[in-house]
Amino acid sequence: DYKSLDKLIIGVIGGDGIGPMITKQAQRIMEFLLKKPVEEGKIEIRTIEGLTIENRAACNKAIPDDVLAEIKKCHVLLKGPTTTPQKGDPWPNIESANVAMRKELDLFANVRPVKVEEQGIDWTFFRENTEGAYALGSQGMNITEDLAFDFKVITSPGAERIARAAFDFADKNGKTRVTAVTKANVIKTTDGKFLEECRKVAAEYPHITFDEWYIDIMTAKLVDEKRRKDFQVVVLPNLYGDILTDEAAEFQGGVGTAGSSNIGKRYAMFEAIHGSAPRMVREGRAQYADPSSVIRAAAMLLAHIGYAEEADKLYAALDICGNRERKLVMTGRDDGATGEEFADYIMATIETM
Amino acid sequence: DYKSLDKLIIGVIGGDGIGPMITKQAQRIMEFLLKKPVEEGKIEIRTIEGLTIENRAACNKAIPDDVLAEIKKCHVLLKGPTTTPQKGDPWPNIESANVAMRKELDLFANVRPVKVEEQGIDWTFFRENTEGAYALGSQGMNITEDLAFDFKVITSPGAERIARAAFDFADKNGKTRVTAVTKANVIKTTDGKFLEECRKVAAEYPHITFDEWYIDIMTAKLVDEKRRKDFQVVVLPNLYGDILTDEAAEFQGGVGTAGSSNIGKRYAMFEAIHGSAPRMVREGRAQYADPSSVIRAAAMLLAHIGYAEEADKLYAALDICGNRERKLVMTGRDDGATGEEFADYIMATIETM
Ligand SMILES: CC(C)[C@H](C(=O)O)[C@@H](O)C(=O)O
Ligand SMILES: CC(C)[C@H](C(=O)O)[C@@H](O)C(=O)O
Repeated sequence: DYKSLDKLIIGVIGGDGIGPMITKQAQRIMEFLLKKPVEEGKIEIRTIEGLTIENRAACNKAIPDDVLAEIKKCHVLLKGPTTTPQKGDPWPNIESANVAMRKELDLFANVRPVKVEEQGIDWTFFRENTEGAYALGSQGMNITEDLAFDFKVITSPGAERIARAAFDFADKNGKTRVTAVTKANVIKTTDGKFLEECRKVAAEYPHITFDEWYIDIMTAKLVDEKRRKDFQVVVLPNLYGDILTDEAAEFQGGVGTAGSSNIGKRYAMFEAIHGSAPRMVREGRAQYADPSSVIRAAAMLLAHIGYAEEADKLYAALDICGNRERKLVMTGRDDGATGEEFADYIMATIETM
Repeated sequence: DYKSLDKLIIGVIGGDGIGPMITKQAQRIMEFLLKKPVEEGKIEIRTIEGLTIENRAACNKAIPDDVLAEIKKCHVLLKGPTTTPQKGDPWPNIESANVAMRKELDLFANVRPVKVEEQGIDWTFFRENTEGAYALGSQGMNITEDLAFDFKVITSPGAERIARAAFDFADKNGKTRVTAVTKANVIKTTDGKFLEECRKVAAEYPHITFDEWYIDIMTAKLVDEKRRKDFQVVVLPNLYGDILTDEAAEFQGGVGTAGSSNIGKRYAMFEAIHGSAPRMVREGRAQYADPSSVIRAAAMLLAHIGYAEEADKLYAALDICGNRERKLVMTGRDDGATGEEFADYIMATIETM
């Protein structure tokens, strides 16, 4: 329980590209909403510098040691987009900072809500966030020049805790159905184990309907306007979660509009799931980047640390400003408002509440 | 070139559940359309018995040896749905017959067309069909009771030949764009190799635009009505192909309506991609099962072996009968036509052409 801490430390990690600019706006809004506890010394909001691709490349690490040490002093984190090098990029082949952070901080549950009221969609995805195809993602083996291996890992405790998180959430939020998604008909050993653990946990919640689908057919089901409404809580291994949540977010207006929370026992991290838009930076338009997604992640953070009222106000303000001003502020059209102006507008809106 | 063979042998594999019944209807139609070459002894159409879950379970093999020997005597195959056991089923944990067949016959290219004219969709997917997450799919390792491993394998020749198949197809069919889909930002070793081979082949086709996306965002892009039209040919590793083609088929009316072709150097296999509907069999309604999807697969087979005119007639008849009679024959409503009546209707329609 965060409220019982002497001082709760929120770290704000800028990241790359438009990241520092948009997280700064989210930070201003958090400072505004948390003014009292900050003044009373109950909460501290820290900016954490240095999680940039340049620094990471220089030390050839997904997260530089000193940055990781700073991060570990915090309790909850708000994170901007970070660059993931791939073959052909000028940087060494280091792991995604997101993926590394999830493992280093043991943020095992990636929780992504998707809601489209007009369409009756109200899904919450529980993506396992530390193992699966991501566990050894950047440590595959080149056996010969022509033969490459990668590994997928599932542990029973790892599968059990995400299944339990999904069922607990369903139980506490009046949900009546939990769906497990795997490819256990082909990837039998790991996905089989994942499914087995889900079934065991399901047996402890006899009042919640449990069903199972394969990931291939599940991507089709989300497209089916008649039947997709029936899904409520979905629990799935890392890679399938990555895939299905992006598809799901599209019905809500695209990945750029969604926030994602990464929850562990000790730490929690909230992030926007769009990229760092290096082109906007190159073209000198970073100040026009839309901060609304990372502000939404900040609202998730506020709810998570127990500031439900502040979170609700922020969600409400995002709804109002998002609707009224969407055309102006979206994706940085330079005839629109800057990110700073948008944040000002959000705060002004909250003041009227 | 099949036309140069002394005798081309087409094998028809019934499979499980409704399989034998629906493939029988497709076989009748093929016999009807290939009457002349069959009478002349240029083509033989054989029924291959025994690829049933009972037989496979009895010998604990994905494909019983004697059945595989019979299959290997054919050149092209039409296959009905086969049961894939999963944890908790009464059968041993044997591999999917589809997956085993793809590997045994080295059917490296899974080609799936998806076309929705009203929406401007005209996609052809080239799914690598023998390696990736499927290569050792049922041979993962349980290191301890709580720790499971699976493997993903990509070889350079394996990736290269599917990339080449995709670009060749694009080139020969006036397509201007080929898209490679991986998750090379995380699954760096294998997906990185796959992408590298795609890039190498792309360099040989400078007149074709080549682009790259990650599988997560790609599932979102297919939902985007404005931008999805732009995709033409998509090449991707096994598991991503499995996932994306099911999503794609949904826009065309669902997985049940789609056919899939599995192409190798020596063999080719055509199949419907729906299940074996054991419940229909249990309820005694197998004769009402809709054979249109496996008949579509038969049309793909006819085109593949060089009987383009016969294939076109069959496609046209499917369009006519599918539209006029769809409500009656779909998914075996027992107030509708039987599969046999539907096949009769298809042949009568072709006779009027
Ligand atoms: C950026 C990438 C490594 C990451 C992932 O694959 O998890 C992203 O797609 C996400 O879903 O947060
Ligand atoms: C039945 C299953 C093993 C198969 C696969 O995963 O390849 C199916 O989904 C397909 O796409 O043909």
